[in-house]
Amino acid sequence: MDIKEIRSLAKDRMKGVCNLCSECNGIYCSGQVPGMGGTGSGRAMKRSYEKISQVKLNLKTIHEAKKPETNIMIFNQNLSLPLISAPVTGSEINMGGYLSEADYCKAVVSGSKMADTFAMIGDSGNPQFYIDGLNAITEENGCGIAIIKPRENNKIIENIKKAEIANALAVGVDIDGAGLVTMALLGQPVGPKSKAELKEIISSTNLPVILKGIMTVEEALLAVEIGAKAIVVSNHGGRILDDTLAPIEVLPEIAKAVKGKITIMADGSVRSGRDIFKYIAAGADIVLCARPIIWGAIGGGSEGVASYINHLKNELIQAMILTGANNIGEINSDMISYNFDI
Amino acid sequence: MDIKEIRSLAKDRMKGVCNLCSECNGIYCSGQVPGMGGTGSGRAMKRSYEKISQVKLNLKTIHEAKKPETNIMIFNQNLSLPLISAPVTGSEINMGGYLSEADYCKAVVSGSKMADTFAMIGDSGNPQFYIDGLNAITEENGCGIAIIKPRENNKIIENIKKAEIANALAVGVDIDGAGLVTMALLGQPVGPKSKAELKEIISSTNLPVILKGIMTVEEALLAVEIGAKAIVVSNHGGRILDDTLAPIEVLPEIAKAVKGKITIMADGSVRSGRDIFKYIAAGADIVLCARPIIWGAIGGGSEGVASYINHLKNELIQAMILTGANNIGEINSDMISYNFDI
Amino acid sequence: MDIKEIRSLAKDRMKGVCNLCSECNGIYCSGQVPGMGGTGSGRAMKRSYEKISQVKLNLKTIHEAKKPETNIMIFNQNLSLPLISAPVTGSEINMGGYLSEADYCKAVVSGSKMADTFAMIGDSGNPQFYIDGLNAITEENGCGIAIIKPRENNKIIENIKKAEIANALAVGVDIDGAGLVTMALLGQPVGPKSKAELKEIISSTNLPVILKGIMTVEEALLAVEIGAKAIVVSNHGGRILDDTLAPIEVLPEIAKAVKGKITIMADGSVRSGRDIFKYIAAGADIVLCARPIIWGAIGGGSEGVASYINHLKNELIQAMILTGANNIGEINSDMISYNFDI
Amino acid sequence: MDIKEIRSLAKDRMKGVCNLCSECNGIYCSGQVPGMGGTGSGRAMKRSYEKISQVKLNLKTIHEAKKPETNIMIFNQNLSLPLISAPVTGSEINMGGYLSEADYCKAVVSGSKMADTFAMIGDSGNPQFYIDGLNAITEENGCGIAIIKPRENNKIIENIKKAEIANALAVGVDIDGAGLVTMALLGQPVGPKSKAELKEIISSTNLPVILKGIMTVEEALLAVEIGAKAIVVSNHGGRILDDTLAPIEVLPEIAKAVKGKITIMADGSVRSGRDIFKYIAAGADIVLCARPIIWGAIGGGSEGVASYINHLKNELIQAMILTGANNIGEINSDMISYNFDI
Repeated sequence: MDIKEIRSLAKDRMKGVCNLCSECNGIYCSGQVPGMGGTGSGRAMKRSYEKISQVKLNLKTIHEAKKPETNIMIFNQNLSLPLISAPVTGSEINMGGYLSEADYCKAVVSGSKMADTFAMIGDSGNPQFYIDGLNAITEENGCGIAIIKPRENNKIIENIKKAEIANALAVGVDIDGAGLVTMALLGQPVGPKSKAELKEIISSTNLPVILKGIMTVEEALLAVEIGAKAIVVSNHGGRILDDTLAPIEVLPEIAKAVKGKITIMADGSVRSGRDIFKYIAAGADIVLCARPIIWGAIGGGSEGVASYINHLKNELIQAMILTGANNIGEINSDMISYNFDI
Repeated sequence: MDIKEIRSLAKDRMKGVCNLCSECNGIYCSGQVPGMGGTGSGRAMKRSYEKISQVKLNLKTIHEAKKPETNIMIFNQNLSLPLISAPVTGSEINMGGYLSEADYCKAVVSGSKMADTFAMIGDSGNPQFYIDGLNAITEENGCGIAIIKPRENNKIIENIKKAEIANALAVGVDIDGAGLVTMALLGQPVGPKSKAELKEIISSTNLPVILKGIMTVEEALLAVEIGAKAIVVSNHGGRILDDTLAPIEVLPEIAKAVKGKITIMADGSVRSGRDIFKYIAAGADIVLCARPIIWGAIGGGSEGVASYINHLKNELIQAMILTGANNIGEINSDMISYNFDI
Repeated sequence: MDIKEIRSLAKDRMKGVCNLCSECNGIYCSGQVPGMGGTGSGRAMKRSYEKISQVKLNLKTIHEAKKPETNIMIFNQNLSLPLISAPVTGSEINMGGYLSEADYCKAVVSGSKMADTFAMIGDSGNPQFYIDGLNAITEENGCGIAIIKPRENNKIIENIKKAEIANALAVGVDIDGAGLVTMALLGQPVGPKSKAELKEIISSTNLPVILKGIMTVEEALLAVEIGAKAIVVSNHGGRILDDTLAPIEVLPEIAKAVKGKITIMADGSVRSGRDIFKYIAAGADIVLCARPIIWGAIGGGSEGVASYINHLKNELIQAMILTGANNIGEINSDMISYNFDI
Repeated sequence: MDIKEIRSLAKDRMKGVCNLCSECNGIYCSGQVPGMGGTGSGRAMKRSYEKISQVKLNLKTIHEAKKPETNIMIFNQNLSLPLISAPVTGSEINMGGYLSEADYCKAVVSGSKMADTFAMIGDSGNPQFYIDGLNAITEENGCGIAIIKPRENNKIIENIKKAEIANALAVGVDIDGAGLVTMALLGQPVGPKSKAELKEIISSTNLPVILKGIMTVEEALLAVEIGAKAIVVSNHGGRILDDTLAPIEVLPEIAKAVKGKITIMADGSVRSGRDIFKYIAAGADIVLCARPIIWGAIGGGSEGVASYINHLKNELIQAMILTGANNIGEINSDMISYNFDI
């Protein structure tokens, strides 16, 4: 499917909930939680966009990287590019409701697999959404990851067991969801997790466990210490706390501390293949992507998701051609320039 | 009362004097003195807002701060949160006149007490306003602080005596009011205070004396030297001088110099619980809050004030959950990131 | 006269040539040369405004500066404040033509004297304008300074002789006028001046000679070396070259090099008494002021000019009260904070 | 021809494809590729404009540079100013189609010669455009340079032979064109060039070979090593990759590394004579200029191009008068101030 068509259809179908702005910078939708925006003033989401936009690629064309390879290995899977679809829930409450929750999950999980990568599915104040996500993973023979809210430990472990049954590739907890006060109102209390609790979670399963929502070196080191297999450097898309740094601001020092000891995922305003390149160059092993995947799903179902991912892959290839990276492993911090202190 | 309802009612009742902007950043009301804005170009108020907004919280959720406590002790009182309602006068001249001065003072003083904290009441070119404020304190059995303009010393001491009769918790002088040229026109001259004058004021009473309007390390040290019990780091909301730094810019170095030797209050663009958190992390013991209290009073009387304070407390709790502070004492400068040189 | 009335009348009479914006920042009038704006994109004028606006006063009110004195001595004259009206010509071509050139000069020279300071008058492609200016000085018994364009040396010396006859206090050359290509088209060629030429000019008269348009330490030192009595740190209001630094950016290092060896005047976006304070604190001995004087002249003639100057003086007094300066000599760099590297 | 008239005619004839904005800053046309803008968000082009605008000239008028000379020698040619018309193709696809490709090339090549400099002609997905360009050079007896896209080596060498027949002054490859994915779709594949390939190209001809699109010190050193005669520091006008630095940001360090060893050309947002001055001061030997040349060609044919170049020369002379440079060789980095870290 053509990207312009996908975007045009998504714009119609989202009825103003998302404006599919030419620059998806968090201004149009600021404060729209529920909805597609950042919380409060929206400045955490705006900052994530601004900061990743301010990272520049060092243009180079005297080299032999004529046909770069973008594939990577993660959790023993070969992915066609270092990108996973981010866990997003609430088709009706956040995205305008064009798709049912189940159809949304299916589009994302199947579309991601179609593009030779995979999706994360999420958890929510409405527990059915998690089931919808797992069902989508089950239909794709386990090709997906289940991310669970930081509920009470027994609830998390219960949800992990369901993910095991679905044969998921991995599980995780988006611990920054601790700030979702609305979940308590829905009888689904969440909160911070102690080291002991996280250890119990990790030891409850043989699946790799991912901690999503790490924004400091201290917690990245803790994640390594307690045996997590991956972290996601993320501020929850700026939807939890109005005053956080951008993921790209904290990623370099986190990578310096834990690179090679744990898989580093990065999440925040990935809108193009160049953004994937930047996060990898800044120290990530792989990125998460949310809004473009939503547009793909709503604008074109699973095929739309796959098309959008392939579009991002082509942009990533172009970025590698114009910097001289033959493969993902060759992408490094000398290939970018920051415009802010790190 | 619901915050949205309070804000909506306040907006109606203030008839454009305040626009209750989604970001209360000093742009709409710039130059409106009298009114709700900063003086002149309004840039001192805008800067206060911008700078506090640029302070970021370091998101952390691997910890045990699941139920943070927000109470603090000050002047031998136990407050439910580190926030005092700021001294504001001129309901008619500055706020659109929906409430009489007396009713405004009553709403603020009673509402603050209702939320288990207390209010400061202010002084003005119209001396009756101070009396209105003291009356409100009297009605709440002395639960409040009287802030007096930097008049001639005998006038200040006279006003302190009245505060003693009202059984106020403390008194203070907003010495930055020295710039209020309009007061001289009303036959109420104000001006800077020498050390000798301030010593005389302090020795005239057994009540704790607060100096409001400190923006330099030198004057913070002077305040300690002459025996003041507290300072308020404040630029008078940007309403005195168009070209001042933001309080958050000078607070860290002031705290470095006098923390523990005197109570440090901070005042300037406190709009959310996150802002309280930031000032505390930057070295304040407690913050002052003005505009949200005004909205509470006009939108819902004393109940509105209490509701707004409780709303701020809930936001503060959320900020503590998302940074790992079990109580106010645990909040520290490692929990924030500045985006400007300090 | 009331400042608001002066501004309102000036706005009517200038018919859009000047918009009397609440912030006179060079945006409305950008590129309007002839007119009131900066040349080209107007960014030199905008930058002058921005940078002086970014200088902040360090608010202090614990001191004894209750009644600051603003007078200074310059060229053996006692001025009521450290401000001289800047040389401006072209009432018709630049200001909308409400006043004749002669009437404009008269309003400025007389009004400045009325406020116990004095004015500079300027030179132009139309040589009559210089005569109009000198006539105004003659009428005020020599109370004024004549600034001459960097013409051929014999022409300059001829004009100095005329100024001597008018009994002017001093003379000067605005050497940055070297860039006025339009003057050559009018048969009045101008250009840079060599050291030898400037020495000849200085030795041609007993009057103090001022060099206007100094923006570097090198040329400030040259001015001292060749015996000039004063420099004006100025970029000609951003009306000569689109890409210059702001005067306030270069003033501190120039003051460091030549303070005390030569009188330092500063010129650029002086709109308030705070701006006077800032330039003095940054190292100037006195400032030049242009636009407010134009508004005064057009809105109220000589009385308007005097009223506007007195208004600026009152603002300067307030700034001194709020920083603790008893007199102009006490104003120093510790009383301000820069927000940019100097 | 008058510049205002040329601009006015060009605006009419370009029918909105270019708005001839008073500040040509890449905002109006952002994303318009094809068209006149930067690719994607347009931020690479906007940044080029912003950064060169932030470079300031150090105003000086005490010196003897009354009649600066602007001529330079390059490739054994005496040029009237350090400016070459940049290679631009696609009159219909990018510029609105007022001129045929052949007429556009003719206007630019002849107009540049008329102003005593010369033009580069370009290559494109439509191979006829290169022929049109060469024909224009042939008509002017070889006064021009042929820039070839980074095609397969045999294609490049074939095109160089054609340039030799046209008697061109030099040839070059715009290697940053490697990112033009659209060319492959037109059956004209392009890509990065290895050192070996570039050496083969250079050794295939006796003409000087220029490498256009250098943005790093490493590749500048490589260019010297393999025997290129010139580099163009360029990001292809921000039309290849959305996230690049501005040429003026990387030029100083490149000049530090290779100045004197290879001719350094700079390209990016040259809109005025001041911009030429800035690039020379920052280390370039000569600049390329695109948009003003396009306006000249469309607004006034070859005469329009010549008039615009002479206009830029006059602005350059004024900049030299106001900084004290007698000739191009005297322009140096002490004459400018950067407002960003280099």
